[in-house]
Amino acid sequence: MGEILKVGVIGTGMIGQDHIRRLTKVLSGVAVVAVNDIDPKRAAAAAPAGAKVFDSADALIADANVEAVIICSWGPAHEAQLLAAIAAEKPVFCEKPMTTSEAAALKVIDAEVAFGRRLVQVGFMRRFDADYRRLKAVIDGGTLGTPLMYHSAHRNASVPAGLYTSDMPLNDTLVHDADISRFLLSDEVSGVEVRLPRRSSQGVDLRDPTFVLLHMASGALVDVEISVNIGYGYDIRGEVSCEQGVARLPERPATLVRDAHGVRQAIPEDWRERFIEAYDQEFREWIVAAKTGTATGPSTWDGYAATLVADAALRAVESGAFEPVRMRDKPAIYN
Amino acid sequence: MGEILKVGVIGTGMIGQDHIRRLTKVLSGVAVVAVNDIDPKRAAAAAPAGAKVFDSADALIADANVEAVIICSWGPAHEAQLLAAIAAEKPVFCEKPMTTSEAAALKVIDAEVAFGRRLVQVGFMRRFDADYRRLKAVIDGGTLGTPLMYHSAHRNASVPAGLYTSDMPLNDTLVHDADISRFLLSDEVSGVEVRLPRRSSQGVDLRDPTFVLLHMASGALVDVEISVNIGYGYDIRGEVSCEQGVARLPERPATLVRDAHGVRQAIPEDWRERFIEAYDQEFREWIVAAKTGTATGPSTWDGYAATLVADAALRAVESGAFEPVRMRDKPAIYN
Amino acid sequence: MGEILKVGVIGTGMIGQDHIRRLTKVLSGVAVVAVNDIDPKRAAAAAPAGAKVFDSADALIADANVEAVIICSWGPAHEAQLLAAIAAEKPVFCEKPMTTSEAAALKVIDAEVAFGRRLVQVGFMRRFDADYRRLKAVIDGGTLGTPLMYHSAHRNASVPAGLYTSDMPLNDTLVHDADISRFLLSDEVSGVEVRLPRRSSQGVDLRDPTFVLLHMASGALVDVEISVNIGYGYDIRGEVSCEQGVARLPERPATLVRDAHGVRQAIPEDWRERFIEAYDQEFREWIVAAKTGTATGPSTWDGYAATLVADAALRAVESGAFEPVRMRDKPAIYN
Amino acid sequence: MGEILKVGVIGTGMIGQDHIRRLTKVLSGVAVVAVNDIDPKRAAAAAPAGAKVFDSADALIADANVEAVIICSWGPAHEAQLLAAIAAEKPVFCEKPMTTSEAAALKVIDAEVAFGRRLVQVGFMRRFDADYRRLKAVIDGGTLGTPLMYHSAHRNASVPAGLYTSDMPLNDTLVHDADISRFLLSDEVSGVEVRLPRRSSQGVDLRDPTFVLLHMASGALVDVEISVNIGYGYDIRGEVSCEQGVARLPERPATLVRDAHGVRQAIPEDWRERFIEAYDQEFREWIVAAKTGTATGPSTWDGYAATLVADAALRAVESGAFEPVRMRDKPAIYN
Repeated sequence: MGEILKVGVIGTGMIGQDHIRRLTKVLSGVAVVAVNDIDPKRAAAAAPAGAKVFDSADALIADANVEAVIICSWGPAHEAQLLAAIAAEKPVFCEKPMTTSEAAALKVIDAEVAFGRRLVQVGFMRRFDADYRRLKAVIDGGTLGTPLMYHSAHRNASVPAGLYTSDMPLNDTLVHDADISRFLLSDEVSGVEVRLPRRSSQGVDLRDPTFVLLHMASGALVDVEISVNIGYGYDIRGEVSCEQGVARLPERPATLVRDAHGVRQAIPEDWRERFIEAYDQEFREWIVAAKTGTATGPSTWDGYAATLVADAALRAVESGAFEPVRMRDKPAIYN
Repeated sequence: MGEILKVGVIGTGMIGQDHIRRLTKVLSGVAVVAVNDIDPKRAAAAAPAGAKVFDSADALIADANVEAVIICSWGPAHEAQLLAAIAAEKPVFCEKPMTTSEAAALKVIDAEVAFGRRLVQVGFMRRFDADYRRLKAVIDGGTLGTPLMYHSAHRNASVPAGLYTSDMPLNDTLVHDADISRFLLSDEVSGVEVRLPRRSSQGVDLRDPTFVLLHMASGALVDVEISVNIGYGYDIRGEVSCEQGVARLPERPATLVRDAHGVRQAIPEDWRERFIEAYDQEFREWIVAAKTGTATGPSTWDGYAATLVADAALRAVESGAFEPVRMRDKPAIYN
Repeated sequence: MGEILKVGVIGTGMIGQDHIRRLTKVLSGVAVVAVNDIDPKRAAAAAPAGAKVFDSADALIADANVEAVIICSWGPAHEAQLLAAIAAEKPVFCEKPMTTSEAAALKVIDAEVAFGRRLVQVGFMRRFDADYRRLKAVIDGGTLGTPLMYHSAHRNASVPAGLYTSDMPLNDTLVHDADISRFLLSDEVSGVEVRLPRRSSQGVDLRDPTFVLLHMASGALVDVEISVNIGYGYDIRGEVSCEQGVARLPERPATLVRDAHGVRQAIPEDWRERFIEAYDQEFREWIVAAKTGTATGPSTWDGYAATLVADAALRAVESGAFEPVRMRDKPAIYN
Repeated sequence: MGEILKVGVIGTGMIGQDHIRRLTKVLSGVAVVAVNDIDPKRAAAAAPAGAKVFDSADALIADANVEAVIICSWGPAHEAQLLAAIAAEKPVFCEKPMTTSEAAALKVIDAEVAFGRRLVQVGFMRRFDADYRRLKAVIDGGTLGTPLMYHSAHRNASVPAGLYTSDMPLNDTLVHDADISRFLLSDEVSGVEVRLPRRSSQGVDLRDPTFVLLHMASGALVDVEISVNIGYGYDIRGEVSCEQGVARLPERPATLVRDAHGVRQAIPEDWRERFIEAYDQEFREWIVAAKTGTATGPSTWDGYAATLVADAALRAVESGAFEPVRMRDKPAIYN
């Protein structure tokens, strides 16, 4: 491949448009040469100068000018698009959820393993956030000893009433906490429990907050608070308790003001503000790997794990019991 | 009673000696006029100038010169001593654990209720800590909405190998977190679950850390991390998640040093350093109430609740299941 | 002297009444047996049960039942009262300002030196504040190297319009920063410069803020921001810059709230809230020393230094230049 | 100009190489097409693929393929190179110091004013730092009232012995604090005082630390601590005191670790680590403006101001007195 990676973007909704902006205005070494959407008008509107608009995702993937693919379509479409990209032997970035069923995830893994090396990066952007990376570096540094517990809090200011359902804290939100727990602890989830605390009056007809326990394969225990209507901002907290010390995500940098409200510091409004740099970095690293015909960062294995954890969490809501997570053997290309 | 409250101290071990020091050197309006211990020599050594040493706890309690009683003997002796003090109609401060069985706790409650007003204050000193009181004031202020979750962490630098057993995180430590949760949330515990994370290699032959869920009567959920060999210090954390915001205990005041270790702040070594002012305040308020022939602060009802929670937690370790906490109806004198 | 120190209080205005409350309700080992005020009715109203009201300060000081004296009268009366107490060989606590002129300060020092040991403690209560003491311990610990600069900020929410004059930031406020700088750095002030920044519109007809440089004998440089109408609270900051690191006073402990105002923490409203524990500790240590017939803590030497610094600062406002502070040789009893 | 801005880089020492890396690996919309250095071998080694190496700066500036110029040569060469770039009507980025004399600065201003619009951006990268920008936004927001004082601290872990001279804290370091003070307060410096505190033993034969007062045209007062051998890291602090509150730069985001050293957080090692994102942003904005044939951000006016402040500070070291800063009238293109 040349100095500039030529990519095709499938799906030009909100997140697809944001990635097109990022690829054309922020990042270097990359050009968007093709776009596709189920709504052709939306695709045409989102296409940057010089990009070709394709009628179908398959045609985009197959086009010789497209060197790598970015999938931002809706979840149920991912399986076929990922399989097509792997068949075309093209590096591919796929937004969450990688797939919407365990069976689909396994098919993608099988295809990638058959190809023989990684081609897919899944969109868990937190792994590219500087705060999480520093936290992992402290854990891996080993001076605090083995990690035994991880406390995670995931708080949204609000979610759209009506559109946001009670499964979404588990399907859309918990998957981030599960993935970052696996990342930070270098561990797998072996089972899930869910407890439903007193319900907030802020979210009409919504099960909120949600409290989740992730049992890790090493025995480490992760607890997760998910609050999606807490009003004050978008607030992501994490603290790991190790044998000889604990380590915690810092407050976000913000001017310390001393005024009639006391000593205070602003909190991000939403995930865009909180993770904007992580999204940029996510694609910087994807571009570098894609230019060499492979992928790094979160893999199909991680997407598969997220699917299993979300499934187990939904079962755990119903059963009230411990729901095991049983993963297949890990193929060597994911080590 | 006069301006100076004349008290007798039963039990002159480490904690009894510390309270005698506090009553004679730090606090005003009080005098230690009587001491008793199962070891007469230890009692004599601990007695301040002018205090009479008694052969038996009963004799001390009955003595006309003793206006109020402080019980620092070992747990199994508390029941009889409390009942004797109530029978003598004398205000009494009793160290934790109030009693060592539910049946004993109920007998003390019955006696106090029969007397007709509160006489007993139980030694949950955290309720007198300025940080916890400010946290409760924020919750009670109501601007954050109803509390839904409370996250508690209780970390000890180390515990004495051999002497400290695996039940003690539940019997001696959890009772503090349970009591302060009841205090902060103005709520009762209705059930307990215990999960055992990956075991620390720091504590030989010890179940450590321990993770506990307290289900509150309101539906609020409390999670507690107990780590008793974490090395770095004595560290008590607490954060309440409400409908519209969260509130957290502050870092303890300590010089902020910027040096080759980064920006850093010292952590207390042990509970004495952390709670020394709370102990002083605990007795200041006890003295004021005792002079008027009654008691305020943590009651026999709170001691009874702590006993039930510890019992349920020990059952939960065995069963791995939710263990309910069922309390008798609350007598009016405790409202 | 006996177990209970019998003290007489001269001056029963606001600060005198507060000390009487402290001595009778908070502290042990002390009793207020005598009071005096220029207003006999105010003295009578402030006198605790059993205390004798004296017509004159001299009579109170001379009374055989008074073992130690507390001076809370207005500044110009201090000189004569201090000299009388020293002549009577009684330990004495004296509120700020110790004296209102250099000549008066030197007379008090001469009298105490002639007596042969310290009898006087001056009311610089910051030296008893736990935060400042920890900061001094870090400096004296030596791990950060020699202190080279100290940055001090002294901010009042507001001062009474009309009553508060432009000299008071130097006469009443700067003396605290000067004293604590001498304490922290174990140093003397050798000269003063004052700069007047842009004037705040908050204080009508008031020179506010004021910026002061204290040149220390060692060469260390202290800068002081004094803002007396800053609105948001009473806020005392201090940071020392040493050869190999810096150390700073911590934020005051206050619940960390995360709500629509961001992450925030309350600030004390006034000096009473900020320094209430320091005042208690100030008298605890005074009582201990007075019982042995002497004094510790801030001395007449420190009161003399404060007087010289305030005088130099007032001269520096007029001259715009460096104004030297020239102290007499230090008598051995102050080492 | 096209979508890709074609730039020539003059000076390929450490900072020039770092900017070439930034322009080729990090930023989009820009290509390095030409390089020049007084050492032709160094220029050739630093040139990215496809870039032409020029024998002279003049030839590079004149080349038709070069659309914009970046000057990273040594200070004394800047004047001629800036004048040549302005004569060629090409946008130019110039590293600090813009010029090494007031006369040279005025010539560059005259040339730019004669051209009729801004062409030059000067390398004060702090203005692009997110923390400083948020601080300025708080001040400009006006809720804290008029700014009256600004406290700045500029601390380097160490400077190279022998190479670093006693003028450099004023010539190289103070200019950053002066520029950021002008930026934050929207003000000009009207005079400078310098005080030399007790000398650190860490820097052999070096005047360190240095304490500077900047008197601003509005009357606001800025104090600056410069410590260049403080060992613990690169630490930039800033706090503005306004009429009704204060605002401060936050701690840098870093994992909060609780271990045997206390609660602690890492400090950046040097300016590269601290300001890496500011450098990226500085060029992002330069590229956008240069594509439209102009410049934004710090101007030749700001470079001129920095030169005057450094000159006044050096005079103030000698005189010990207030040294005025007298600027020419401000041309309209800098408003």
